[in-house]
Amino acid sequence: MLDYKSPIPLHYQLRSTIENRIESGQWKPGDRVPSEFELGEEFHISRTTVRQALGDLVNQGLLTRLKGRGTFVSQPRIQQHLTRLTSFTQDMHARGKQPGAKTLQLEVVISPAHISKSLQVELNEPVILLKRLRMADGVPMAVETAFLSHRLCSPLLEEDLSQGSLYELLRRKLKIIPSHASQSLESVLCPRTEAQLLGITKGSPVLSIRRVTYGRDGLPFETVESYYRGDRYIFYAELSINPVS
Amino acid sequence: MLDYKSPIPLHYQLRSTIENRIESGQWKPGDRVPSEFELGEEFHISRTTVRQALGDLVNQGLLTRLKGRGTFVSQPRIQQHLTRLTSFTQDMHARGKQPGAKTLQLEVVISPAHISKSLQVELNEPVILLKRLRMADGVPMAVETAFLSHRLCSPLLEEDLSQGSLYELLRRKLKIIPSHASQSLESVLCPRTEAQLLGITKGSPVLSIRRVTYGRDGLPFETVESYYRGDRYIFYAELSINPVS
Repeated sequence: MLDYKSPIPLHYQLRSTIENRIESGQWKPGDRVPSEFELGEEFHISRTTVRQALGDLVNQGLLTRLKGRGTFVSQPRIQQHLTRLTSFTQDMHARGKQPGAKTLQLEVVISPAHISKSLQVELNEPVILLKRLRMADGVPMAVETAFLSHRLCSPLLEEDLSQGSLYELLRRKLKIIPSHASQSLESVLCPRTEAQLLGITKGSPVLSIRRVTYGRDGLPFETVESYYRGDRYIFYAELSINPVS
Repeated sequence: MLDYKSPIPLHYQLRSTIENRIESGQWKPGDRVPSEFELGEEFHISRTTVRQALGDLVNQGLLTRLKGRGTFVSQPRIQQHLTRLTSFTQDMHARGKQPGAKTLQLEVVISPAHISKSLQVELNEPVILLKRLRMADGVPMAVETAFLSHRLCSPLLEEDLSQGSLYELLRRKLKIIPSHASQSLESVLCPRTEAQLLGITKGSPVLSIRRVTYGRDGLPFETVESYYRGDRYIFYAELSINPVS
């Protein structure tokens, strides 16, 4: 199965083989992975090599190690397009998953400095702080902290934000129609508070996304800072030589 | 400076304040950050709160901790657009940085299974494996492992790939003109080998990017797997309700 004469390192070949087994459905989510010893026997390689391949796959999120229980195939990750401005709720419905939100904080606050800049509001102007845990089929997926323009969005304070989509509410109640957004992405280690909320180990890799969303009138109405679980999310983008943006 | 009555946690407010000092240039790259004690005094908050804010900023890559020396403002990160298909060399030139590449491996190998699929070549067909360390002003930024179609790209084996851009070579020598690509992004912990090459701690957060690049004829000519340093890179994308892709 492996090519022992190839200049491609054996641990890389093993990783590729295991990825294929997972992609092809030969190994299914939740399946227990054979032991290092068994894999070493099957592929005629050392346990050190097996360990490196498995370690890389764990880091990558395709395998999950459970203390004292072994290594398992992870649940498939959610594939999210990076250039489509959709709501979490829409996204989850499109995937046949039940979207959920738990409102952790909903308050009017004085705008922090870097938020004022993004939202184009005065320093010391009130903004709405909305912190939510986003869930798919009851499993925590992301923590979102949104700051919304109080001037534009204050009627939201009356609404139940744990049901349905914020964008849908904005559209229906306030005629604010999300039109475009600019977004930054970084790979970071999960901060403590967010790790607790997501039920992951502090220091797990997460994708930190910051977004400023604009309405049809070109005015920013929200800025959001989110942490997406690295083990549950994979993002996609199409690139071209002459992008439209 | 901080709003002690605000429902926004003080560590978040401090983080926001420090981000602003860095963005505004009040604190410059390489500057030593005041001690926890000094920041606690300045903002009238506990050292625990300061520690949490600083820890989050270190995780985020804006601050760097050097053992026994203190905490420093990180070098500014490279801002890369996610939807523009440019070469690393072009990117670096556009930023006034000197691009560099160190070829770690350049060989013809039998295509691993998941590569065959991406490149649309037969299993067991030869492909070119090109592993390079990419540098900006001499500092390692990313490790790229590219697999190129041997059928289309074999003349590359004669070339010096440490100078200039691979895409430029493809264009000039082989009339292969990169046209578009599809890309996936994940936040992962850096594997051991790549961490050594990048000169970062094993387990640092990195962005793992996989790309399949197509020529004007619509055929894939390369698939690349890269690890970008989380502390040096931040990625950007524009989103819209009706993306063109």
